[in-house]
Amino acid sequence: GAAADNDLYINQAIVFIEDAIQYRSINHRVDSRSLWLYRWYYSRTCQWILSLTITVILALAFIEEPSSLTVTSDVRYRLPAWNPPCGLTESIELLCFLVFVVDVSVKSYLIGWKEFWKNKWLMAYILTLIVSLADWIVSLSFFCKESVRIRRILRPFFLLQNSSMMKKTLKSINSTLPEMASVLLLLAVHLSLFTMFAMLLFARTKDNQQDKEWVVYFRNLPDSLTSLLVLLTTANNPDVMIPAYSKNRAYSIFFILFTVLGNLFLMNLLTAIIYNQFRGYLLKSVQSSLFRRRLGIRAAFEVLSSLRETPASAQQSCVSVGALLQVLQKAEMDSRCKQAIMRSLKMCSCDQLSAVQFQKLFEELDKDAIKQHPPSPEYQSHFMQKMQFAFGHPCFGYLGNVVALANIISICVVLVMDADKQPSERDDFFLGAINCFFILYYLLEMLLKILAMGLKRYLSYPSNRFDGLLTVILLILEIATFAVYGFPHPGWRPEFMGLLSLWDMVRLVNMLIVFRFLRIIPNMKFMALVVTTLLDLVKNLRAFAGILVVVFYAFAITGIMLFKGAVVPLGNARGSEEYSEAEFTGSCVHISLGKKKVLSWCSAHFQAGVVYCFLYVLSVHLICRWAKIYFVAWWLISSVIWVNLFVALLLENFIHKWDRRCQRESLSGIEYQRTVELMFRDVLEEPTEEELMEKLHQHPHLQLCR
Amino acid sequence: GAAADNDLYINQAIVFIEDAIQYRSINHRVDSRSLWLYRWYYSRTCQWILSLTITVILALAFIEEPSSLTVTSDVRYRLPAWNPPCGLTESIELLCFLVFVVDVSVKSYLIGWKEFWKNKWLMAYILTLIVSLADWIVSLSFFCKESVRIRRILRPFFLLQNSSMMKKTLKSINSTLPEMASVLLLLAVHLSLFTMFAMLLFARTKDNQQDKEWVVYFRNLPDSLTSLLVLLTTANNPDVMIPAYSKNRAYSIFFILFTVLGNLFLMNLLTAIIYNQFRGYLLKSVQSSLFRRRLGIRAAFEVLSSLRETPASAQQSCVSVGALLQVLQKAEMDSRCKQAIMRSLKMCSCDQLSAVQFQKLFEELDKDAIKQHPPSPEYQSHFMQKMQFAFGHPCFGYLGNVVALANIISICVVLVMDADKQPSERDDFFLGAINCFFILYYLLEMLLKILAMGLKRYLSYPSNRFDGLLTVILLILEIATFAVYGFPHPGWRPEFMGLLSLWDMVRLVNMLIVFRFLRIIPNMKFMALVVTTLLDLVKNLRAFAGILVVVFYAFAITGIMLFKGAVVPLGNARGSEEYSEAEFTGSCVHISLGKKKVLSWCSAHFQAGVVYCFLYVLSVHLICRWAKIYFVAWWLISSVIWVNLFVALLLENFIHKWDRRCQRESLSGIEYQRTVELMFRDVLEEPTEEELMEKLHQHPHLQLCR
Repeated sequence: GAAADNDLYINQAIVFIEDAIQYRSINHRVDSRSLWLYRWYYSRTCQWILSLTITVILALAFIEEPSSLTVTSDVRYRLPAWNPPCGLTESIELLCFLVFVVDVSVKSYLIGWKEFWKNKWLMAYILTLIVSLADWIVSLSFFCKESVRIRRILRPFFLLQNSSMMKKTLKSINSTLPEMASVLLLLAVHLSLFTMFAMLLFARTKDNQQDKEWVVYFRNLPDSLTSLLVLLTTANNPDVMIPAYSKNRAYSIFFILFTVLGNLFLMNLLTAIIYNQFRGYLLKSVQSSLFRRRLGIRAAFEVLSSLRETPASAQQSCVSVGALLQVLQKAEMDSRCKQAIMRSLKMCSCDQLSAVQFQKLFEELDKDAIKQHPPSPEYQSHFMQKMQFAFGHPCFGYLGNVVALANIISICVVLVMDADKQPSERDDFFLGAINCFFILYYLLEMLLKILAMGLKRYLSYPSNRFDGLLTVILLILEIATFAVYGFPHPGWRPEFMGLLSLWDMVRLVNMLIVFRFLRIIPNMKFMALVVTTLLDLVKNLRAFAGILVVVFYAFAITGIMLFKGAVVPLGNARGSEEYSEAEFTGSCVHISLGKKKVLSWCSAHFQAGVVYCFLYVLSVHLICRWAKIYFVAWWLISSVIWVNLFVALLLENFIHKWDRRCQRESLSGIEYQRTVELMFRDVLEEPTEEELMEKLHQHPHLQLCR
Repeated sequence: GAAADNDLYINQAIVFIEDAIQYRSINHRVDSRSLWLYRWYYSRTCQWILSLTITVILALAFIEEPSSLTVTSDVRYRLPAWNPPCGLTESIELLCFLVFVVDVSVKSYLIGWKEFWKNKWLMAYILTLIVSLADWIVSLSFFCKESVRIRRILRPFFLLQNSSMMKKTLKSINSTLPEMASVLLLLAVHLSLFTMFAMLLFARTKDNQQDKEWVVYFRNLPDSLTSLLVLLTTANNPDVMIPAYSKNRAYSIFFILFTVLGNLFLMNLLTAIIYNQFRGYLLKSVQSSLFRRRLGIRAAFEVLSSLRETPASAQQSCVSVGALLQVLQKAEMDSRCKQAIMRSLKMCSCDQLSAVQFQKLFEELDKDAIKQHPPSPEYQSHFMQKMQFAFGHPCFGYLGNVVALANIISICVVLVMDADKQPSERDDFFLGAINCFFILYYLLEMLLKILAMGLKRYLSYPSNRFDGLLTVILLILEIATFAVYGFPHPGWRPEFMGLLSLWDMVRLVNMLIVFRFLRIIPNMKFMALVVTTLLDLVKNLRAFAGILVVVFYAFAITGIMLFKGAVVPLGNARGSEEYSEAEFTGSCVHISLGKKKVLSWCSAHFQAGVVYCFLYVLSVHLICRWAKIYFVAWWLISSVIWVNLFVALLLENFIHKWDRRCQRESLSGIEYQRTVELMFRDVLEEPTEEELMEKLHQHPHLQLCR
């Protein structure tokens, strides 16, 4: 009936507006049951459960068998890691898989059959699930004793497919690949030509004294290639040329030429290429988000204009204010925006809204939220007013900075003086007394500021929140110290007692004081600019970081599988002093010897970041061929490509910010909550009506009346 | 008289046009004697003498006393370097100083007294000369035994002041300094805060086993600062965190945080800032060159229009064609341009030229020289025509590339097979026979190409010149080998004989063959683009390279003076095997012990590039404080700032080139001799007539009639 139809239209409008707010695509089913499912699927609870499931399945690697999440990484001291019984992690995995199965079915249903066949990501999702489940069954039927577990390597895919930003970024990286490949090819040519040169230059001679270069670095083709590849990373930089250089200085020309061509030119060329490709990346992605938002709003307008209550006679389609109010009340959106839209709806006296007016109403969504600090309290007493003026003045803040600096300097002086003292000789009296005084000052400063500004205004500044929180923690720590160890007095010795010794307490307090010193940042103009750029960058980098996590995870799992048990405690073979350094070296040696022993080696790096290992490992020349290939691939992806992507994004962000700095300075009085979308607002193009309508008519499920 | 006046005007016009061609400033004296002096000063001979003098005075460091330009850098083997007798280098220096005195006097005279006082470079030049001469007198009066020679550090100034490009670049770098300083300040804050954190985290504990981190890296403030500074260069990357990491994995968070903030963010921020500053740099410099050219031509027009022969009645000032022809004949310029201008002068039928016409005539100077290859010879015989078609075809070139590749692969195979053989076991028969065959093919290819294209056309392609030259050298080498060692036969052993052994000969031939393989570059599109970008970059980088040489020189001389005699042969203290590696380490140890011995250590690096040493040296923790400061300064300037400048320029150049690639591809048939000026031609702004005239009226020596 008409009422049911009207209800459907209202519901459609609500969903479209929510899509617009979240920058989602509107290409989904629009019948009432699908709409209910859609809103349920994108509700906070559901999305939260999905994220939790992804986190859990990724985190499983930390407790699964070949991992070794222990406190120390030293093979001698560490206890055997806890091995979960067979079936525990597997049942958690099964639960996760079930959630994913529900997720993929709902998603596939919602976009419809036709769209499903076009969506490669969904197909890959289903394929991954099938492979994982099959592998899971195999695993259980072997009672968890099988050695290869493909599903672990596939896990990061679940993270990847759940984020549209990451998919977009991946597509963008993908389009850069051909040019990156050309540079990498060039790099390979460079490397191989220089390797041949090197092998001809540093050939074996009759005099054994003279061919040290040949013995150590250029004995055969793989060795030479490795030496020069490592030189490209500058890890063995002076070492590799020393034997030849000490024979004849002219040999250094070869190495300088190689480094200049490879490192300065080709590597930076890669940066240039990636930057060139990514120059428009942010803008393009913001532009497409804007298009999605406008499209969602336009779709809402179109469905609302087909409501029966609208006079069909009107030439121009329009929407009644009442219907819109109904939609707004039910839609989930930021309350500030909702109120602002309601307000402008009431202000506009007309009863019907045209498409342009409708669009304009929702422009509130794109606007900066102007942050208004609550007002200071108004005191009656003259004395209080004077106090308020004095402690609300910026100078009081500067004084606080000076005091914090003085505190840092005093800690530094004590550190320098105590550097060489035995723990038993230390006397914490001086530092304890000083810190006590400073913390009292910080407390006083906080209280006076709250007095002058009022609690609400005080808390509305992030710098004050940071300040206050640290002051309170410091105060609690100090009180706890006094409660346990009494007040500072000469000979206030740090002795071990309870959870933390006095010495640890004092260190913790000092660290917090050093950390609190960061409050000076907003006071320095250039620093503030840099820090806001960095924060912006972190926001924009989330997608990249996600992809990095995916790559990290896949590499770590592969590494664990490849090098499982390559490290063994060498025991008496080396002195215990050198041991922990030897762990790294030992691992490589052992891989090369083909021994497969108990302890995992890459799992150690899984938690620490594999990056650090590569240069160190490749400079030890004994590693076997497979490990070499693994590490070179890792170096190329994590260090070369990812770092260059990072540099490109930083350049892009920073240059935009810098260009806009002057412009912003004129508005410096007002504090904005800036988002990426706003940074580009004056460059963005509004989509035309024709584009929007064309896209709407292509909608697979929505039949517009006209 | 009028004739003398006319002569003066003609001469002025000649000089102004030459200024325009060379992009020189026209603000110099314009009376006839000064003009003669000016043309003499800028004549090729004079400028050549000046450059030679600068080269000589800079090269003196290689033979002066504390240097050690010997073949080997190994302290044990090297002979004492040749010490020139006192007075030899000093008298060469005096000669150079005299040339500089003449140079500075002529320059000062030519720009005139008023301008002289405004020119800080000239004043600094005179000051440097005075200080150098005073130091020279002191040096002679001590019979060359004095230890500090200031004039050596001042030498690179002579290189700096002679190049206007370098002065411009320096100014540009100078304007970036405030922002660079801000980032460096930020870096210093980052470093000091983290140092304090580290000292609090890795404090001395009671258990000696547990505080390895403290013992090795964070014993006191300078040690901690050094450890973290070196971590910023990633030189001690995994090592520094291993002791703490093996105690507790969580400590790695500290190091990861430090590296990510410092290396990824702050260091790349420096790149972004420098790139942002240099984005317009090339364009701006080309724009100001264009202005100088237009100004010179306009000035020539103005002086020619004041010639008596022009009818004064004319409202608009103009120039007679005859006068211009007279000027053109006497002016020194590219003969192609001169002919083109003459031709268009003859084509234009008018007798008088207006300012616009005059300017237009000289636009020939800005144009690309379209390179035309001479035509192929036309053969009568049908057979020869077919031959010409076959061997002039690009496919023949590709065949040549394939053969070169086959040759490379065969050499590679032999290298891999022979890698581990003793020199006495080697048999060069196989390689000798193969190379003989390939070189014959190369010779044939060259001859056939010359037959098909004619010698002139063949030589007009740079790739053919490269190819032909290498083929001829290879042929000569091969003939020499056969003459000495006979034709290849099984058991063709490499024995030492004469200057080069057979083995060395074969190696040399192989290297040349590998080098010859680079001829494939122009055939691969992307490679060609990259290589042309790099060549462009090298052109634009000359000024930067000059400044780098200046900085290198100053640092090397300072280093020689500071660390003179810090390295001594350690003799029996270490095994001779490890010796040459120990030279570096030893130097640092010895500096720290304060021993000042005979051999110079930095002079060794002077010839090899000091860059390589830094990371290695700082990672040895025993060096003394002064050496530390010296190396940190060196690292900041050479590695951080200069590399970032380089990256900025590369980005700038590459992105311009890339943007223009499509545009260029349409013209791909025509080969241009591209210059920087031409790259920007479509972006450049022509100066307006008002700007030019205003600048002309500000000329300190030229009084224009109107």
